[in-house]
Amino acid sequence: MNRSRRDMMSGIGAGLALAGMGGGPAFAASRKIGYAIVGLGSYATRQIMPNFAGCDQAKLVALVSGTPAKLAHYGDQYGIPATRRYSYADFDRIRDNPDIDAVYVVLPNSLHAEYVIRAAQAGKHVLCEKPMAVSVAECEAMIAACRKAGKKLMIGYRSRFEPYNRLAIDLTRGGHVGPTRLITAEHGFPAQPNQWRLDKPLSGGGSLMDIGIYSLNAARYLTGEEPVEVSAVESTDRADPRFRTVEDRITFMLRFPSGIIANCISSYSSGHNGYRVIGTQGWINMEPATPYSGQTMTIRKNNVTAPRTLPAPAKNQFAGQLDHLAECIMTGATPIVPGEEGLADLRVIEAIYRSAAEGRSVRLRA
Amino acid sequence: MNRSRRDMMSGIGAGLALAGMGGGPAFAASRKIGYAIVGLGSYATRQIMPNFAGCDQAKLVALVSGTPAKLAHYGDQYGIPATRRYSYADFDRIRDNPDIDAVYVVLPNSLHAEYVIRAAQAGKHVLCEKPMAVSVAECEAMIAACRKAGKKLMIGYRSRFEPYNRLAIDLTRGGHVGPTRLITAEHGFPAQPNQWRLDKPLSGGGSLMDIGIYSLNAARYLTGEEPVEVSAVESTDRADPRFRTVEDRITFMLRFPSGIIANCISSYSSGHNGYRVIGTQGWINMEPATPYSGQTMTIRKNNVTAPRTLPAPAKNQFAGQLDHLAECIMTGATPIVPGEEGLADLRVIEAIYRSAAEGRSVRLRA
Repeated sequence: MNRSRRDMMSGIGAGLALAGMGGGPAFAASRKIGYAIVGLGSYATRQIMPNFAGCDQAKLVALVSGTPAKLAHYGDQYGIPATRRYSYADFDRIRDNPDIDAVYVVLPNSLHAEYVIRAAQAGKHVLCEKPMAVSVAECEAMIAACRKAGKKLMIGYRSRFEPYNRLAIDLTRGGHVGPTRLITAEHGFPAQPNQWRLDKPLSGGGSLMDIGIYSLNAARYLTGEEPVEVSAVESTDRADPRFRTVEDRITFMLRFPSGIIANCISSYSSGHNGYRVIGTQGWINMEPATPYSGQTMTIRKNNVTAPRTLPAPAKNQFAGQLDHLAECIMTGATPIVPGEEGLADLRVIEAIYRSAAEGRSVRLRA
Repeated sequence: MNRSRRDMMSGIGAGLALAGMGGGPAFAASRKIGYAIVGLGSYATRQIMPNFAGCDQAKLVALVSGTPAKLAHYGDQYGIPATRRYSYADFDRIRDNPDIDAVYVVLPNSLHAEYVIRAAQAGKHVLCEKPMAVSVAECEAMIAACRKAGKKLMIGYRSRFEPYNRLAIDLTRGGHVGPTRLITAEHGFPAQPNQWRLDKPLSGGGSLMDIGIYSLNAARYLTGEEPVEVSAVESTDRADPRFRTVEDRITFMLRFPSGIIANCISSYSSGHNGYRVIGTQGWINMEPATPYSGQTMTIRKNNVTAPRTLPAPAKNQFAGQLDHLAECIMTGATPIVPGEEGLADLRVIEAIYRSAAEGRSVRLRA
């Protein structure tokens, strides 16, 4: 793969691998990577921060927020001393704090690029929430900045650390229901008014940036392919005050090199969470597919439909994600969802928007 | 509606209504409309013909086939005398047989237009299997021929006579799960080789003509709207001997005037049979949606998912369809699925093929 080759050629992977391997596996187990959380919104405080408790290799060591009351509240709750509570104004001082190994950027989308680049420049590894940024150009700048700094960059695609999604990938690529012919993927929720998500300068776009990206990312990770053609249709009621600047519904079809077509939905005015892989011998259905918990898999094969269950995981997807970057930092490995993965989604997202706007299919390089 | 106005203006409806009403409701009950079945393939012999037994107003009185052995076999089975068994060469002689009120054309698609027009010219009402024909131009000629002859023309959209589909229409249009935002519809099956369906001169097209039309038709009957924009992507392995002349997979998005988007699948290499109506408060799911029997409805509303069951119908969809045209003939009413309904599908089908071929969305008149 290009990604691996590039890492090897740049020496980043090799260098960090040596550093991380210094103490062998025992070293990895004895030390935890310290994270600073940047942005104390609902997702950070309700989903991410409580899950450090389940991590083997990651710990919460610092907080960054523009709201002093939040810094005080969550700092006290998680035992983060005042010396590791930062405002955005003094964000760059994280450089001087050796307890902070990595920064998790959980800000509104349009701020991702700036804070990822500043974090890399401060000498920190970075986990960045999806969507990676609001444009391909920003993604490329973020990747370049982290590479220049010799730091890891990973995107918060938590489903890749969720056992049912991992099984769905294995079953799909293994041809469990025959070669894949079609994929459907639907993600959406009725957006509440007055959120940064509905403000294009902050979000960079509507439902596609926020929730539809799960449909897109699933189509890519299930197939393991990159789409070569994108066709999209948008439907937005601009009279709805929620949708003055961002799109509501956008549906898109992706054609992959193997011939697989994915039909995808993204919506801010209806509830969806699922995907289905349809092969020549049946299908693999996930509904819900990408919630915080409660994934449900059903498989139809040779005309028999049955649920497929897994044991509850020892580590949930949030802890799995935090530990993965920690492990990569310690071993020098490349994250399974590096910046290039976020960039790949943004390339398709830009093509989706262009297709919908211009009423034509958009070709992408294979 | 244009359709009703046209009937009234032409006087066809009124004239037949008077004729049919001659004996009042008792007349309708005492007389059955006689059907000739044209084409004794699997669908006609296994699905349609056995269901005359459940009809109140329709009976099987004649057979038309190019295969003498089939005429003998089915003629004997259904007690059709030799005087009411026709070859294609002497098809036009049905004109002289007053026992035949209506003709049900169950031939390969590209023969529909010719036999519908000949039936009308022979003074018979017509039920024509879907797809109505292989082009808009043929549909228009068929409608004109039936109008000129003063005969009914109905298309075999059996799902419109199936109780779960009727309920789905009522629930959708009644806003049971809130205003509709999106629809998904999937139809497909792995095509067996060496069938007329795979021979474009006979079929007029691939999966879309045969099975994908159910996705399209469902999107139209659930919304009650006509699409204004169509965008399609095709994926066909032309090295597969089944797909030398016709398409395998074709997926399409329809945008409706109200803003609803339908994401549809048509496939000849994977199994699909379902649709889902997604509203602001939940969804109505049908899977399977359009089989010969066994429709299954599940509704999610306000975060509760539950099956919705109906009593077994007194009359199945096949008998319902045959009786409906009979009733229309007797009362002068216009069928709920007249030629115009088949034409509307063909307009969209032509747009779907054009969109896939040209890589652009195709606008349709509202």
